[in-house]
Amino acid sequence: MPAPVQFYFDFISPYGWFASKRVEDIARRHGREVDWNPMLLGVSVLKVMGLKPLLDTPLKGEYVRRDVRRTARKLGLALGRDLDAPIMNPLPAARALCWVKQYQPHLQAATVHAFYDACWTHGIDLSGVDAVLAHVPPGVDAARLTEAMAGDEPASLLRASVDASLAAGVFGSPTVVVDGEPFWGYERLPDVEQWLATGGW
Amino acid sequence: MPAPVQFYFDFISPYGWFASKRVEDIARRHGREVDWNPMLLGVSVLKVMGLKPLLDTPLKGEYVRRDVRRTARKLGLALGRDLDAPIMNPLPAARALCWVKQYQPHLQAATVHAFYDACWTHGIDLSGVDAVLAHVPPGVDAARLTEAMAGDEPASLLRASVDASLAAGVFGSPTVVVDGEPFWGYERLPDVEQWLATGGW
Repeated sequence: MPAPVQFYFDFISPYGWFASKRVEDIARRHGREVDWNPMLLGVSVLKVMGLKPLLDTPLKGEYVRRDVRRTARKLGLALGRDLDAPIMNPLPAARALCWVKQYQPHLQAATVHAFYDACWTHGIDLSGVDAVLAHVPPGVDAARLTEAMAGDEPASLLRASVDASLAAGVFGSPTVVVDGEPFWGYERLPDVEQWLATGGW
Repeated sequence: MPAPVQFYFDFISPYGWFASKRVEDIARRHGREVDWNPMLLGVSVLKVMGLKPLLDTPLKGEYVRRDVRRTARKLGLALGRDLDAPIMNPLPAARALCWVKQYQPHLQAATVHAFYDACWTHGIDLSGVDAVLAHVPPGVDAARLTEAMAGDEPASLLRASVDASLAAGVFGSPTVVVDGEPFWGYERLPDVEQWLATGGW
């Protein structure tokens, strides 16, 4: 089996949510699985790149608000989150996902979808651990996860995931990496598909 | 005849060059013409948005270098410019284009292509007025343009074009605006085409 497609994303990123809806189908058409890698825009964009949050950037912020609504309409997705609500703290959800990925890896995709839909379809703020635990998908061992979230391991796993994303050169959400070739942005999924189909150009 | 498609770009932008190769065909398929609007990333990105130049941004700079080469390969375009060469001063070329647009508007597209190909296919630095004048396309009144470039009018026209781009919310190159709807980025051309075909979604 060829290597999985690497999908990097942040739960605060609506473009990551859009791409999360399509990347598995694309991968599957080419005999691939998807490996889900949480990263943190707060680290890559704010700390490493030294930029501002997207929605706080003059001109670009307005464009992105419009484009997110427009893209949701195009995809037939209900956008349940106010784009001007305070930015959610993505750490608890990302940490919980890292724990699931470590101990129940077959449930990582379901966990990504459950958390993403809670945030972006239903507008639920997952900034708190309790909210995250209330939205794990069926099958996740909630008792073990609850216990784990009280300790350090999920945070350590997330730090390793973020470090690995930076080492791979990933700075934006979503980024899809196919056999080492990075594609940044939701609108690059057609390129991802073409790269998978042809092996590159 | 429906309103022209508005194409905003900076000559320093390779993604603008890529899009300039395709936007006329897209517009024509839907009975539209293209209006070419020079803008300046040095104003929108550096001054208004307060960001750094793309290639100087950690992580993103490396990605963009790779992506520009990859996109040129995909489009079958020879990339003749070293991405790490000093950034060209786009003012003389943009000013000359504004003059052509004002006085010989039927030659604006040919002028855009001539300057863009000089920069990006042939790696010619158009930072100086003489270099710009040496690359105007056939039909442009070089004597009148030479005289005009010694005066203030081309610079005034460009200032107005840049102001208009900011007033339209344009911050990046390329941006295509269809009946008031903005699409930023080369990879959004399929959306431009779909919007033209359907009137929006």
